[in-house]
Amino acid sequence: MKKLYGIGTGPGDKELVTIKAVKVMEDADIIFAPNNKGTNMALDIVKEYIANKKVILLNLPMGQVTKEDYIKNAKIMEENILEDKYGVFLTLGDPLIYSTFIYLMEEIEEMGVQTEIVPGIPSFIAAAASSKTPLTLKGEKLLIIDEFNENSLKNIDTFCLLKTWKDKEKLLKEIDEEGFTYKYIKRATLEEEKILIDEEEILKDKDYISLIIGRRNPRD
Amino acid sequence: MKKLYGIGTGPGDKELVTIKAVKVMEDADIIFAPNNKGTNMALDIVKEYIANKKVILLNLPMGQVTKEDYIKNAKIMEENILEDKYGVFLTLGDPLIYSTFIYLMEEIEEMGVQTEIVPGIPSFIAAAASSKTPLTLKGEKLLIIDEFNENSLKNIDTFCLLKTWKDKEKLLKEIDEEGFTYKYIKRATLEEEKILIDEEEILKDKDYISLIIGRRNPRD
Repeated sequence: MKKLYGIGTGPGDKELVTIKAVKVMEDADIIFAPNNKGTNMALDIVKEYIANKKVILLNLPMGQVTKEDYIKNAKIMEENILEDKYGVFLTLGDPLIYSTFIYLMEEIEEMGVQTEIVPGIPSFIAAAASSKTPLTLKGEKLLIIDEFNENSLKNIDTFCLLKTWKDKEKLLKEIDEEGFTYKYIKRATLEEEKILIDEEEILKDKDYISLIIGRRNPRD
Repeated sequence: MKKLYGIGTGPGDKELVTIKAVKVMEDADIIFAPNNKGTNMALDIVKEYIANKKVILLNLPMGQVTKEDYIKNAKIMEENILEDKYGVFLTLGDPLIYSTFIYLMEEIEEMGVQTEIVPGIPSFIAAAASSKTPLTLKGEKLLIIDEFNENSLKNIDTFCLLKTWKDKEKLLKEIDEEGFTYKYIKRATLEEEKILIDEEEILKDKDYISLIIGRRNPRD
């Protein structure tokens, strides 16, 4: 039987990969990762663990992938995994948080390939550690989102806003008005990591690998 | 200067510890962990990485710890970390998700001890991987809670309910009525791991190291 592992490579620091992920990668027959203009960040993170392995980059253009694209790419993986061997699909962070692996897993299982997931440290967990921001104290609620909507924050104590956004100025204003203090964490755990709290500095930054953690201000 | 690392040991499988956590533990001078009747699950997970190291179990009775307890235990750590050496405080999962480390960090920093956090794989991320439950598809919202309250679920697609609860029968009924399908994951990633979806089986289970993931049913 053929098998595909979905592996979370963690947020960026190559030492924030788990021992299990390294072992599974070392014994893999072939490695798959999304093609981001000929490269891939998850692949960069684990490159020393997969030296000399065959790598196939899959074309999954962000934000505009159709079901047919998932089927096509699942088929490419299915065809390239040999009988009784296994391949690995790499995901930055964790495979079940805003990842294409979720869709590919569904399609490749339909093709009779077994799947298994090795969890990874999500970016928001790493960003909280870098910035020493509590995510949940006892009794608190944490919300993970990829789009900001003030209606979601009613009963929330902390939120993590992943991915990019268009109008940062409006966003920061709304976060402030809802009674939250924010931190902007750019490239968490990488050498270029920056933690910004100043509005002007955040607005100037154009990096798309960044996220915002908001903590509700103490209530009077 | 003295330093304390807060380390997340991950959910239970000793291979779901990160390479960084292992390195930091191996070079540590002393290890601290909460005392759970003479033992500690985080300590069990990493025992082979810290063989022969001095270990101090701290008395932090769950659910009834006062600020004075945190100060007292931070003081014990501060006194036991030698000048220019570092100690490690172990947390199951991640140090910033429902953990006593958050409170201890605050107190020990007041005493002039430097702190740093090594993130770990939270239990809910591991439970999702074991049960192959998507946590967030594009545009979806994920809520992390340690107490169930149906008012929190209004705009939510998935929730993870950590920690224990009293009336499981009432809880499962409410989750169902709110339009969610649940999975009960017991001791995720450990040998005794079980994934239950049958109400009767869940009600029979008395394990306190379990959590519930709820996914909203497709809307008509």
